[in-house]
Amino acid sequence: MENQDFLQMLANAVGDVRNRRPLIHQMTNYVTVNDCANITLAIGASPIMADAIEESGEIASIASALVLNIGTLNPRTLDSMISAGKVAGSRRIPIVLDPVGAGASSLRNEAAKRILSEVHPDIVRGNLSEIAYIAGLHAAANGVDVSESDRALDATFVAKTAAQKYGCVVAVTGATDVITDGRRMAYIKNGHPMMASLTGTGCMSTALIGAFSAAAEPFTAAVAALSVMGISGETAYRVAGERGTGSYHMALIDAVSRMTGDTLLKEVKLYA
Amino acid sequence: MENQDFLQMLANAVGDVRNRRPLIHQMTNYVTVNDCANITLAIGASPIMADAIEESGEIASIASALVLNIGTLNPRTLDSMISAGKVAGSRRIPIVLDPVGAGASSLRNEAAKRILSEVHPDIVRGNLSEIAYIAGLHAAANGVDVSESDRALDATFVAKTAAQKYGCVVAVTGATDVITDGRRMAYIKNGHPMMASLTGTGCMSTALIGAFSAAAEPFTAAVAALSVMGISGETAYRVAGERGTGSYHMALIDAVSRMTGDTLLKEVKLYA
Amino acid sequence: MENQDFLQMLANAVGDVRNRRPLIHQMTNYVTVNDCANITLAIGASPIMADAIEESGEIASIASALVLNIGTLNPRTLDSMISAGKVAGSRRIPIVLDPVGAGASSLRNEAAKRILSEVHPDIVRGNLSEIAYIAGLHAAANGVDVSESDRALDATFVAKTAAQKYGCVVAVTGATDVITDGRRMAYIKNGHPMMASLTGTGCMSTALIGAFSAAAEPFTAAVAALSVMGISGETAYRVAGERGTGSYHMALIDAVSRMTGDTLLKEVKLYA
Repeated sequence: MENQDFLQMLANAVGDVRNRRPLIHQMTNYVTVNDCANITLAIGASPIMADAIEESGEIASIASALVLNIGTLNPRTLDSMISAGKVAGSRRIPIVLDPVGAGASSLRNEAAKRILSEVHPDIVRGNLSEIAYIAGLHAAANGVDVSESDRALDATFVAKTAAQKYGCVVAVTGATDVITDGRRMAYIKNGHPMMASLTGTGCMSTALIGAFSAAAEPFTAAVAALSVMGISGETAYRVAGERGTGSYHMALIDAVSRMTGDTLLKEVKLYA
Repeated sequence: MENQDFLQMLANAVGDVRNRRPLIHQMTNYVTVNDCANITLAIGASPIMADAIEESGEIASIASALVLNIGTLNPRTLDSMISAGKVAGSRRIPIVLDPVGAGASSLRNEAAKRILSEVHPDIVRGNLSEIAYIAGLHAAANGVDVSESDRALDATFVAKTAAQKYGCVVAVTGATDVITDGRRMAYIKNGHPMMASLTGTGCMSTALIGAFSAAAEPFTAAVAALSVMGISGETAYRVAGERGTGSYHMALIDAVSRMTGDTLLKEVKLYA
Repeated sequence: MENQDFLQMLANAVGDVRNRRPLIHQMTNYVTVNDCANITLAIGASPIMADAIEESGEIASIASALVLNIGTLNPRTLDSMISAGKVAGSRRIPIVLDPVGAGASSLRNEAAKRILSEVHPDIVRGNLSEIAYIAGLHAAANGVDVSESDRALDATFVAKTAAQKYGCVVAVTGATDVITDGRRMAYIKNGHPMMASLTGTGCMSTALIGAFSAAAEPFTAAVAALSVMGISGETAYRVAGERGTGSYHMALIDAVSRMTGDTLLKEVKLYA
């Protein structure tokens, strides 16, 4: 059964990350950076955060994956991301882009475009508004959240359009996560609404994609990472949801740190 | 009863923030920024952190309130704050200033003065030393904490002097929080000493004031926010105080995330 | 008994930090800065994070210790660290260096060298690879973790070589922490492997050394701080280890916040 094989690949990827402990270079925002580092460790990979242009290329060259997150971007870090991305690209190190707030400001719009055209990420993860923006289907921005007018868009169409436009894997995360390489589709129906009450669940998902991209090809990596995140969001709610969002935050990282391939196989709600 | 009406306004403000989910643009320090974002979400508002001068005005223009916190300031972010502040001011978007460490270094002193004179915040929140500094009543600095010599100052006099000097609402937080618009006074006797064992409880209070300022006029917003924070500090102590400051930290955010208008009405110790 | 006297000095240092509440100026990375501030508060000291060159010297001059951590360095913060370090040096304020990632990039290598030669820290703490790098014994880098080839190095020899080369106290942290002033040696066998599943346990250890350096001479300060950290890592495991790394993170800070001299005396596994 092809689907069963794919599920097994996702489960194996969890073990592979834990066994290989890949070094994941992350250039990310200062809001959620601690959570990104801790969730990278929780899944068994090793994070290194370095954004100065004087070292970003050098650090990228020793990493097993590069994550670019434009959450609190400035022109210096953008140049540094491009520089690191070119090094990673030339060495076939997988690159993951999180276009946080694309559509919300000219700086972020230009940054997303420049990274997409100069760096060619292997995987892009965003919410519906952000991916709609890079797909050229965006209606209106609402800060870093999905805007009302974008809610009407079809996530499958948006993801597929972006994936085909940039020739990469695209993940639109939301109540249902949609992942595509432009041809294959996967839908993950795990997760919990309480995840939206935490800052950085998107960034953390991207960090996990970075970790998995060092152990599996891009489509599998994105599906495995978002399965882990969605299942962990459910587990965390069962454990700590009623206590509030602070406890939920820690329970989410707890759940990722205890994730196994078996748990993934048992709890994932994947429609591929 | 006028006081009962005011209490009801505070309670209503809690529901209003949760219903409207206002976008709060925060330009803040990298020490406590994650907590500021998470507490903003915990009270039901939506945070966006953006400090590059290339986008701060644009982001401010789509926000419902702007929070300026000078905790880890540098000259670039100061210029960017001024730029965002002018946009917010011209659109009558409420502006909240947290003059972290005012009195402790020339950079912070100049920053506080420049923001006060060029941006005209609607609300300023600080500890006794910081507000004494901007009121021109400051004796001596002690980093970001209240200095010994400032402890002798009368918080009511300090707050009123600052409020009248700048024509805005001023909140001096401490064992008793003092809020004034230069005429009306409010005192909140909630809170717990353990709050001082966490970094960022001041910054988080300011973030909450930002959230409430998008749903109520400045004086009400400041009183509502500090009531929520003080009550949550007490709840967190009951839940987790004995475990230590790490657990207390998460319990504090838990309590804010579970805060309702009814809890506020029942637990606030307000003297107006 | 000399050893008993030394243990009593460590225990006393815990009380001294809590009683004096020294102001600790920390110039550190944006990944773990919140944890560094909170653990500084947890042991009873007062953190101030300030890295702009416009104020770093001024802030250093009012502090009781200065911590320099090169975790997410850029050329601006390096200049600012040198500037603050010179002020601290001229006023005999203790200086602690954490050469995060030394050996992993030219920027960090040059930064570590420049700080060591221009600022003369009183204490340096790092992992085996980082200290091997500054000792001139480094084999190969692996991001911010210890590289395979460096694992073969003898920590005592590495620490002693670095301590004698720079004339300061050096701490190599790992399964066994090794502390030396080039002559005296101390070994701490506390701690738990789960600490490596959290980002920032190294940075937090350095922050604690900063706090203790304001209350004890450098060798005692380093041993006391690493004893507190190691014991807390064990306590946190007993309390929350099975829940996962998020809960473990908070339990670690809890344990530091509840640390007393008596707990240290009872639980430290010190070999001096």
